[in-house]
Amino acid sequence: MYRSHTCGELRSQDIGQKVTLSGWVQTIRDKGNLVWVDLRDRYGITQIVAEIEAVGADIVEKTKELGREYVVQIKGEVIARHSVNPNMSTGEIEIKAEEVNILNASLVPPFTIEDETDGGEELRMKYRYLDLRRNPVKDKLLLRSKVSLETRKYFDSVDFIEVETPYLIKSTPEGARDFVVPSRMNEGEFYALPQSPQTFKQLLMVSGYDRYYQIVKCFRDEDLRADRQPEFTQIDCEMAFVEQEDILQTFEGLVKHLFKSCRGVEFTEDFPRMTYAEAMERYGSDKPDIRFEMEFCNLNAVAQGKGFGVFDSAELVVAINAKDCAGYTRKQLDKLVDWVKRPQIGAKGLIYCKCNEDGTFKSSVDKFFDQDALAEWAKAAGAEKGDLLLVLSGETDTVRKQMNELRLHMGNELGLRNPNVFKPLWVVDFPLLEWDEESERYHAMHHPFTSPKEEDLELIDTEPGKVRANAYDLAVNGVEIGGGSIRIHNKDLQARMFELLGFSDEEAKKQFGFLMNAFEFGAPPHGGIAFGFDRLVATMGGSESIRDYIAFPKNNSGRDIMIDSPSTLNDEQLAELNIQTTHTVQ
Amino acid sequence: MYRSHTCGELRSQDIGQKVTLSGWVQTIRDKGNLVWVDLRDRYGITQIVAEIEAVGADIVEKTKELGREYVVQIKGEVIARHSVNPNMSTGEIEIKAEEVNILNASLVPPFTIEDETDGGEELRMKYRYLDLRRNPVKDKLLLRSKVSLETRKYFDSVDFIEVETPYLIKSTPEGARDFVVPSRMNEGEFYALPQSPQTFKQLLMVSGYDRYYQIVKCFRDEDLRADRQPEFTQIDCEMAFVEQEDILQTFEGLVKHLFKSCRGVEFTEDFPRMTYAEAMERYGSDKPDIRFEMEFCNLNAVAQGKGFGVFDSAELVVAINAKDCAGYTRKQLDKLVDWVKRPQIGAKGLIYCKCNEDGTFKSSVDKFFDQDALAEWAKAAGAEKGDLLLVLSGETDTVRKQMNELRLHMGNELGLRNPNVFKPLWVVDFPLLEWDEESERYHAMHHPFTSPKEEDLELIDTEPGKVRANAYDLAVNGVEIGGGSIRIHNKDLQARMFELLGFSDEEAKKQFGFLMNAFEFGAPPHGGIAFGFDRLVATMGGSESIRDYIAFPKNNSGRDIMIDSPSTLNDEQLAELNIQTTHTVQ
Repeated sequence: MYRSHTCGELRSQDIGQKVTLSGWVQTIRDKGNLVWVDLRDRYGITQIVAEIEAVGADIVEKTKELGREYVVQIKGEVIARHSVNPNMSTGEIEIKAEEVNILNASLVPPFTIEDETDGGEELRMKYRYLDLRRNPVKDKLLLRSKVSLETRKYFDSVDFIEVETPYLIKSTPEGARDFVVPSRMNEGEFYALPQSPQTFKQLLMVSGYDRYYQIVKCFRDEDLRADRQPEFTQIDCEMAFVEQEDILQTFEGLVKHLFKSCRGVEFTEDFPRMTYAEAMERYGSDKPDIRFEMEFCNLNAVAQGKGFGVFDSAELVVAINAKDCAGYTRKQLDKLVDWVKRPQIGAKGLIYCKCNEDGTFKSSVDKFFDQDALAEWAKAAGAEKGDLLLVLSGETDTVRKQMNELRLHMGNELGLRNPNVFKPLWVVDFPLLEWDEESERYHAMHHPFTSPKEEDLELIDTEPGKVRANAYDLAVNGVEIGGGSIRIHNKDLQARMFELLGFSDEEAKKQFGFLMNAFEFGAPPHGGIAFGFDRLVATMGGSESIRDYIAFPKNNSGRDIMIDSPSTLNDEQLAELNIQTTHTVQ
Repeated sequence: MYRSHTCGELRSQDIGQKVTLSGWVQTIRDKGNLVWVDLRDRYGITQIVAEIEAVGADIVEKTKELGREYVVQIKGEVIARHSVNPNMSTGEIEIKAEEVNILNASLVPPFTIEDETDGGEELRMKYRYLDLRRNPVKDKLLLRSKVSLETRKYFDSVDFIEVETPYLIKSTPEGARDFVVPSRMNEGEFYALPQSPQTFKQLLMVSGYDRYYQIVKCFRDEDLRADRQPEFTQIDCEMAFVEQEDILQTFEGLVKHLFKSCRGVEFTEDFPRMTYAEAMERYGSDKPDIRFEMEFCNLNAVAQGKGFGVFDSAELVVAINAKDCAGYTRKQLDKLVDWVKRPQIGAKGLIYCKCNEDGTFKSSVDKFFDQDALAEWAKAAGAEKGDLLLVLSGETDTVRKQMNELRLHMGNELGLRNPNVFKPLWVVDFPLLEWDEESERYHAMHHPFTSPKEEDLELIDTEPGKVRANAYDLAVNGVEIGGGSIRIHNKDLQARMFELLGFSDEEAKKQFGFLMNAFEFGAPPHGGIAFGFDRLVATMGGSESIRDYIAFPKNNSGRDIMIDSPSTLNDEQLAELNIQTTHTVQ
């Protein structure tokens, strides 16, 4: 045994004990006759002291040989510190070194192993094993481990069982791209890695495993953008003999349990719920951040028909009210205009209206709107003296998206998005279908197994775009952390759905034949949900980026730069797999 | 909510309650005015009764419409049964049906959903979702889920954290074949699926996460033989600042916890330990089944030099003593001879010696061995009157393998391998290297990071084959359920190992460069173990086959016949991935 205690556990009551610690050298302070070493492990830091008068010159010399990140074993006595460090859990004591054994030396690390490091992203990723030593990264991975365990404990407490579904499955060309795996034993054929265990969990419901969950890796070969990973983790869940309300209750219970057990945050009230339609109208988003208000205000009635062509030709004129921002300078306002004009947002311009403290109004469109007209805006938007109205206009869907971005931006600017405040929200009644301009047909908004709301069934032939689904998302602080639906368990309705989605009988059979077959043998009513685990943990940790909640993430080109993967195969390997690359080496 | 109770929970104290149950129709017994239905769900079976006098003709008629495996919702009153069924947990009650709702009809299933089914392996696999409804399969998956959860609880109780390692990694041509994944974004390059997270868990030790575990899928593209799956699950573990003893203690604790919590089997003693050398000598196996004795007895001293050429030219003459089997008939003995001559065993013959009740001996080599000589055999093997000695001879390694198979076969024949008795055994001190005849060089027996025993280090240049490793396996009932080693954390020793294994500097760097780099920055002493989860659970369940402990297994050609995978890709998909198949369609 290389240690009797960890570097995080000794306290004043241990004074006088002989102990053995092992860990990494965080810092060394050399005062000649006296050397201090901060020894670090996963559990904390303990100060080691070697003083010539106390332990002799040999020990002191040996201690001086140590370098940053050396792995060292120290034997010695726990003694009281002269000056207690209240910021360290071990700050009352130090160890009088009596034996110092170097277990392994270390090169000087390429960046400092400190909370705030001098290493850039690329360097940290290349030496990820050193980056993982830093407390902020370690704490994120510890949180992840805890959330995972508490998830399982909760599910166990409500009779869910974990079932592992296969990773080598079948490619379905629909939807996002699959990663595929050539089969050596079945020449010319390929497995696919699962984008989700969707069909398998539905099969498990057919099999009677009425409460299933799994924390599982999923794979999606998409062009990566910031904070998307080709492999990601899902909490995948399904229940049988349930209606939407049962699902919401059960998984609200999970999220409450996780926040309480892992963050000490207790939600005593039911999570609020909002329909998709309402969320879009009030926030322009299907995952609104409701930590702050700044809701959308429709100005059509008061802003149109006053001769301002931009508004008059718009489908929607919408405002948000930035409280107490009437004092924004010209420069600040120009910056906002530039911000909304960036290609990522794509607005043509931004109209403002200051509600001055003196009761007057000042807008960028004073030419078209007099004080009375602007007063009507303010009234409609609930703006008071000192507030600033920001107005966008255009085609409804587009302008809502833009205004949503602006609202979140203002929330950030005004410090309204406290990462330690958590506001969950169920968004329900998602549309069943969305129209795809490119392919000129409807796509399933959630997936092809999502059931329509019974009361909307009559619209399915006449106005399919208006049919609402038994589909729901859970958003926390503006981040979608989970989503799911009640599935179709009736094969006639399922066939009708495939038809709506433009699948031929043959295509549907080829892709989902085994599921449709299974549904012939007694499928129970069922539904489920899946949580993006990386995102859930990041949100619980108060971060917007998932990167540091993943031990070994890939970069935006899908590369792991630490292990230098992906990489080429040799010809022998390719031949065995019966494939060749068509890539021409440049 | 489709039910108020499950089909497994109602008891006599619930009599009089109005309840709603949902489930599958197991059986229907139609007595005209009276119909009984057994309704099944995951939790059990409840009997439903519909009697014209009690509930009217409509309900009875509706009940008669039901078919096997229909999904049905029943509302009614809990009543006492006329004749209690003590074999069912719900056997004291039945439900007087007052409302019968068919939630989904079912085709007649292709095999019976009973404990003993009439479905063959192929049919069961094709309709796996129906096979999973059968109790014996369901119970195995429930056990798996429980073992998984208890594993995590144990690890949490001893401060392990779970860290997810990546699935899209880098191919290493060494060892078993990798499954590979073409990267669309990195043209001409491939990821590999992990055969194990070995290097990542060692990196985590370098990162200071001193107690790591993960229950994780691993992939190996091998020619499948019975009971091997291309994807399998491992409990993967690693610890830092430990010696072998710490590892054995910690994971013995895990296995004890699992047996106690999941099987009610308590091991009060330490698990026995045996060196590899001893295991090979006494059982001819590095994973002996010690539920029964029948140990090997070396007969060289008493059986050689008596003029029987087969023995005289053999490196080893070895016997096992089959207690009380002297009465074996000619036919039984011939069958044993045939059994050892099968190509899977490959013995040239089998010598027997009956120790008759009257004190005489009868052997198949009486020509060479008189009664006194045979008495010496019996004495050496500890055989008594009524026993049967079975003797094999030949080259040591070969004959040990053969005799191990024969011993296990006799154990089965004699009913000595009770699946409900569990005998764990640590096998320690494995050789570091094994000689590979084909490549004419040493291979790492465990893997290239396994550390040699310090006291054997001096043999490394002179007799590398004799160097023992800090490597250990845990066997239960003759099944290897886990294995691991203390790793090398010194880079000079690691370099020496690569040299011994015939890696050039360049090869070692290309394959393990990132790990060797990591070791330059303060690697702690560390070691670990990995358990084959499928096999562990099967062993705990008393089964030799892992197939039914996996929800959706593949067949011996690596195919999932339910989803018909692997399958071909279309040209568009292949083009996007920059690959072509070289397979010619036949």
